[in-house]
Amino acid sequence: MIRVQYFQNGSLMPTSLEPESFQTALSDTGGMFWVDFQGEPPETCEPILLDTFKFHPLAIEDALHQTHVPKVDEWEQYLYIALHAINFEPEAGELELIELDVFLGENYLVTHHDLPILALDRVWQAFQMEERHRRSGVDHILYMLTDELIVDFMRAIEVLDEEIEEVENRIFTKPDNAQIQKAFTLKRVTMHLRRSLSPMREVLNKLARDDYSQIDARDRIYFRDVYDHLVRLHDIAEGLRDLVGGVLDTYLSVINNRMNDIMRTLTLITTLFMPISFVAGFFGMNFFQPVSSGLKTWTDNPAFILMMALIVLTSVGMFLWMRRRGWMQ
Amino acid sequence: MIRVQYFQNGSLMPTSLEPESFQTALSDTGGMFWVDFQGEPPETCEPILLDTFKFHPLAIEDALHQTHVPKVDEWEQYLYIALHAINFEPEAGELELIELDVFLGENYLVTHHDLPILALDRVWQAFQMEERHRRSGVDHILYMLTDELIVDFMRAIEVLDEEIEEVENRIFTKPDNAQIQKAFTLKRVTMHLRRSLSPMREVLNKLARDDYSQIDARDRIYFRDVYDHLVRLHDIAEGLRDLVGGVLDTYLSVINNRMNDIMRTLTLITTLFMPISFVAGFFGMNFFQPVSSGLKTWTDNPAFILMMALIVLTSVGMFLWMRRRGWMQ
Amino acid sequence: MIRVQYFQNGSLMPTSLEPESFQTALSDTGGMFWVDFQGEPPETCEPILLDTFKFHPLAIEDALHQTHVPKVDEWEQYLYIALHAINFEPEAGELELIELDVFLGENYLVTHHDLPILALDRVWQAFQMEERHRRSGVDHILYMLTDELIVDFMRAIEVLDEEIEEVENRIFTKPDNAQIQKAFTLKRVTMHLRRSLSPMREVLNKLARDDYSQIDARDRIYFRDVYDHLVRLHDIAEGLRDLVGGVLDTYLSVINNRMNDIMRTLTLITTLFMPISFVAGFFGMNFFQPVSSGLKTWTDNPAFILMMALIVLTSVGMFLWMRRRGWMQ
Amino acid sequence: MIRVQYFQNGSLMPTSLEPESFQTALSDTGGMFWVDFQGEPPETCEPILLDTFKFHPLAIEDALHQTHVPKVDEWEQYLYIALHAINFEPEAGELELIELDVFLGENYLVTHHDLPILALDRVWQAFQMEERHRRSGVDHILYMLTDELIVDFMRAIEVLDEEIEEVENRIFTKPDNAQIQKAFTLKRVTMHLRRSLSPMREVLNKLARDDYSQIDARDRIYFRDVYDHLVRLHDIAEGLRDLVGGVLDTYLSVINNRMNDIMRTLTLITTLFMPISFVAGFFGMNFFQPVSSGLKTWTDNPAFILMMALIVLTSVGMFLWMRRRGWMQ
Amino acid sequence: MIRVQYFQNGSLMPTSLEPESFQTALSDTGGMFWVDFQGEPPETCEPILLDTFKFHPLAIEDALHQTHVPKVDEWEQYLYIALHAINFEPEAGELELIELDVFLGENYLVTHHDLPILALDRVWQAFQMEERHRRSGVDHILYMLTDELIVDFMRAIEVLDEEIEEVENRIFTKPDNAQIQKAFTLKRVTMHLRRSLSPMREVLNKLARDDYSQIDARDRIYFRDVYDHLVRLHDIAEGLRDLVGGVLDTYLSVINNRMNDIMRTLTLITTLFMPISFVAGFFGMNFFQPVSSGLKTWTDNPAFILMMALIVLTSVGMFLWMRRRGWMQ
Repeated sequence: MIRVQYFQNGSLMPTSLEPESFQTALSDTGGMFWVDFQGEPPETCEPILLDTFKFHPLAIEDALHQTHVPKVDEWEQYLYIALHAINFEPEAGELELIELDVFLGENYLVTHHDLPILALDRVWQAFQMEERHRRSGVDHILYMLTDELIVDFMRAIEVLDEEIEEVENRIFTKPDNAQIQKAFTLKRVTMHLRRSLSPMREVLNKLARDDYSQIDARDRIYFRDVYDHLVRLHDIAEGLRDLVGGVLDTYLSVINNRMNDIMRTLTLITTLFMPISFVAGFFGMNFFQPVSSGLKTWTDNPAFILMMALIVLTSVGMFLWMRRRGWMQ
Repeated sequence: MIRVQYFQNGSLMPTSLEPESFQTALSDTGGMFWVDFQGEPPETCEPILLDTFKFHPLAIEDALHQTHVPKVDEWEQYLYIALHAINFEPEAGELELIELDVFLGENYLVTHHDLPILALDRVWQAFQMEERHRRSGVDHILYMLTDELIVDFMRAIEVLDEEIEEVENRIFTKPDNAQIQKAFTLKRVTMHLRRSLSPMREVLNKLARDDYSQIDARDRIYFRDVYDHLVRLHDIAEGLRDLVGGVLDTYLSVINNRMNDIMRTLTLITTLFMPISFVAGFFGMNFFQPVSSGLKTWTDNPAFILMMALIVLTSVGMFLWMRRRGWMQ
Repeated sequence: MIRVQYFQNGSLMPTSLEPESFQTALSDTGGMFWVDFQGEPPETCEPILLDTFKFHPLAIEDALHQTHVPKVDEWEQYLYIALHAINFEPEAGELELIELDVFLGENYLVTHHDLPILALDRVWQAFQMEERHRRSGVDHILYMLTDELIVDFMRAIEVLDEEIEEVENRIFTKPDNAQIQKAFTLKRVTMHLRRSLSPMREVLNKLARDDYSQIDARDRIYFRDVYDHLVRLHDIAEGLRDLVGGVLDTYLSVINNRMNDIMRTLTLITTLFMPISFVAGFFGMNFFQPVSSGLKTWTDNPAFILMMALIVLTSVGMFLWMRRRGWMQ
Repeated sequence: MIRVQYFQNGSLMPTSLEPESFQTALSDTGGMFWVDFQGEPPETCEPILLDTFKFHPLAIEDALHQTHVPKVDEWEQYLYIALHAINFEPEAGELELIELDVFLGENYLVTHHDLPILALDRVWQAFQMEERHRRSGVDHILYMLTDELIVDFMRAIEVLDEEIEEVENRIFTKPDNAQIQKAFTLKRVTMHLRRSLSPMREVLNKLARDDYSQIDARDRIYFRDVYDHLVRLHDIAEGLRDLVGGVLDTYLSVINNRMNDIMRTLTLITTLFMPISFVAGFFGMNFFQPVSSGLKTWTDNPAFILMMALIVLTSVGMFLWMRRRGWMQ
Repeated sequence: MIRVQYFQNGSLMPTSLEPESFQTALSDTGGMFWVDFQGEPPETCEPILLDTFKFHPLAIEDALHQTHVPKVDEWEQYLYIALHAINFEPEAGELELIELDVFLGENYLVTHHDLPILALDRVWQAFQMEERHRRSGVDHILYMLTDELIVDFMRAIEVLDEEIEEVENRIFTKPDNAQIQKAFTLKRVTMHLRRSLSPMREVLNKLARDDYSQIDARDRIYFRDVYDHLVRLHDIAEGLRDLVGGVLDTYLSVINNRMNDIMRTLTLITTLFMPISFVAGFFGMNFFQPVSSGLKTWTDNPAFILMMALIVLTSVGMFLWMRRRGWMQ
């Protein structure tokens, strides 16, 4: 899908996708012209970018064919900016980063992306509906785009934060493979996010500080503002990484503790019953003839008394010994 | 709550919250005017900041709507400084960081925060009560604010230090999930603290070194002093992090040791009793008829003698073998 | 094998390996002369490099005798560039890095390598077949070479990525030594790769930014493009490292969980059967004469009833106690 | 305790603690005046530092009231230098760092510390006894002080090194909680040390490189020398950290190995005796009447022969099976 | 041992250890004079260095009394260079670093070391035997020295590499304390090596880049060459560190896996035999009178049939249950 918006002095002008219409818009140095390519195959975009906008073939190849970390390339008449939009499905544990290629000229903005980006759609509509945006130049569209992209990043980070906390709590009550798998997925998502945020921050830093002719010097403070947000986001993402690392440490600690608990029980039971089972086995050899029959004569038989004494003494002795070693709690 | 203080040549002038009163105070270039917004909704603050102080909309949005890591933004007539105040409840293991937004002009200071900050209240009272503070200009208020904020950070760090030491000691005597959970909470609090201290230090470094028109060059050494404290605090916080990391290592070591101890006991008991239980079971099959009855003839029976010899020899043998392997201590 | 290509104004000129032929090609400042040494012993290459090309002995020693991390050395008339080509056999888990030595002069390019490099062969053929490449100068050959080398690196990284994911999945279902050995091999391959990518990136950065007389200023954007790819590759390789580190953490978590599971079963069985085995052993001592014979009188005998009660109560009691401790799931 | 030394042209002049005596010494620009405050309360030191030496209140507060990491502050007429002296009791595992505050002027040196510092006493005596030191200016006292402080650091590091090696060796022979606790104490001491050495090094670097009017340019090579020692000390301390980290890894490895050993034995015993105990139990049920009595008829009874065969075969089978799995060594 | 070499225009001149002989050599600005002190006590070296060569006392103290990380100190007339020579005994697992102190003047080179250094001896002989070396100035001796030192480092690293691989392989087949101790020794050796290589690289970097009057500008490319080797060595040493760290991870993984294996067997055996042993014990109480005698009546007795059924069913049931849980492989 290719769509265009063209404003003159703040009013939306009728445009078509015809080359002549593009030429008119481009030649109006005081206007604002925004072309958005969404999911178009390279064959469709390439002629327009090359012939109408006269972008450098390398820049076009960057935008259409290749994947990049966010960056700013300064070409003579325009900036090529690669950005990342986030598409985070918390249920699926999947974090998708969509590359958004932006060409920023004096009076036009070209955006290219393979998948729909909600943040971009929000900005598109804002420009269509509210006139107040349309008077600040195309660099203001770029500012609004980056600002909206960040909003989505923020939401993803908040969801991640909650999920990590949830996994950690569940590990304390029930440490199993499912939690570990979840924790590893969250770890990978967090790392993915951090690796995107870091160059994004660098891009905004450049837009806020460097002297690009396409960006009005007075508008830099807006990019500075987005940059400050990215600094904070990066900071939070760092915290998430530590948090998720802590989850794995927690898991190992909890499971070791549990193992310890189980082994203590096993040892307790074994230590209590093995000796008295041996005593029973010893007297079970019947070297000593049972003197009486029936239940009446229990206390008469010396072998029986000896056996009972051994069993009781062993049990009590083992119990006291284990309590002294601190295994009873 | 909105409150104001206005000094002229060191004496407290009567003021009201009326806009005219604000205008009078602001136009007195030799005076000191301090306005504090505490827990006020944005709707109340925004008109004052925008219309009376004429702050830039972006700076106001930073102060009223958003959360930031500590930073200094230089605007033409004033500085916008975001700081963190600490609110640490050691019992709850909760560390709360309150954002304190400061606007510093030539002759005024505006502070904005959502929750009460004890450090700010202390400074507020000091200015109300002691005249000697009132002669040094509004940058001196900022210095006193940062200095008092640091005092609270220091207290929090000391409490943290004690708690970590306590947890570590308890782990050596009784390693359980409660200690681990406590340790992880402390770890998170320490990380939280470090992430706040680091940009705070940077802010003070800027105030101490950069040439801001709002800060008297001779006063920079005071900010330098606060900066030195923050360097030390950051240093201690680094130590805390290592300490808390050591707690988790300790835990794993202690619990592994304990497990080892338990398993050794289990193996000891099993190794001693399994063979002799088998001997008892072997002779318990009664293939050999008991020759005598009663207890008198114990030593007569060759099968009985053989059995006793086997049991004693096995026990002694196992015992010696285990001692040689170093399992007896 | 020594092979040469010599273009004049884009057309392939006949050349031989004779020294005179070399001289002719070298003295044609507007031509493009490419000599490729593949697997030639130093004795064959050295005289040509020294006498015909007049390279510095140290540069020749670097190229012929020694192994290097990728680097660029600027000599007066030419650049010496050491690059790495990758030769990755995924089945064997072996990553082979082949050193490719390049001498870039104004109108010639000398490449030297011990083993065949597919990327180089592809470029060689492209120049032989397609005239359009032949007009851009020898620095364009270098660009195409680096670009093709990167393609192979990319393929290797994709294969690695898949294998790591596969190992991780297999660890969740069947954690054994074979998976661990595989994971360690992948880890070593990843580290190997990263240590090669990092200086490669530096080399391309230099070619893209520094002012070398051998490289046309307008061609630097091409090297910049390769550099951007390398930045992304390095980024992905970082991700691989984290991924492979996560595999080992996963392994430890899974195996600890499994151990926990096994131990719980062991403890369960032991805890259930040890007490009732003791009861059976106790009554097996035959202190109480069996009153009746046959199976009819089961419920008559008080000792028998007592024994059955003990066994059932112990089993049920143990079962309930273990369920309360959460060992039953 | 306050003590003073005052040299004129290398000869020790009589001085008292009277203010006039101080004034005389301070006004002698060619002299060397050293005042040492040891363990004096702030009330005693403050008036002297403020009124006689005219130090800035902030610098005095730094010296008297606060704790700092080593640093150099340049004031107009003097340097304020915070250093650390070490007081290491190897038996107690306690490392004490004493802050040494130094004010260095053109012709005077003021030192302030709460506890006695042996290194300082050594320098004090050297100046009292040997004339040759007294001709090089007060910056030479500072050099000797730093040099002696380093000597004590070096000794502490050597003791630490030995102790760590000792703990590691003991862990291989007897891994228990005491060794772990010792290792963690050593780790904390090492970290403590490193955190002091790093800023100390920075201080000496500044003294060796920066252009302070209080330090003779020709004397900087002496500070450079101390700096080189500190570089090496820091290097060794890094090594200690790795060593102590290795101790904990060793512990975990050794204890895991030991656990493995114990479990193997337990499994061996269980695997050997459980099956044959079952065989004994099976025939112990006396379903088969013992045919003969006494020991003579062992080999006659078919049930007995069967039982013996089962026991022997099971034992041998289990033994062979375990040996094939590599559990026998 | 003190030995000297003195060349004039490439020919070896007769020299003695007499001071006059030294003076002659030193005053010949076009000559090359090399003095080597090996294992000489400071008392012997100090007068020569101080009086004949007129080195600064601090530089002499550095060379004779102290240990240093490699460094370059520039004094007015000469360079003081501290280098490390390696002495690696692979069998003993001991890595010895010998400090080599070098003074490089315009026309002389002084080397000082406590122990024999093979690399130095090789260079000494090369100069005595081959005239071609003698024409390039004393900085060429320094180049050859550094080059030969690196050769020994390279050999040590290759041996280390092989040993680490060997230990890792042995850990997969037989993980025991001996391998762990070996791995820790290798780890320490690797760390030791890395800490030496890093400043060595820095020294060579300085020699290759800085403008020292003692080093001919055209000879810097030789030091650059040695520097490139050191970069690669450092790179390999980094790889070794990762490798040796991986060995310890491998160990923990393998031993955990082994433990898992052992515990599974233990649980298997226990789970199979405990229930059937109880069944045997139950019927061993002889509440049911054996009806028949001899082996003929096995199948007649209902109690016997019940017992056999229970034993077989329990065994099969347990076996199936365990196979379903995946414990059988």
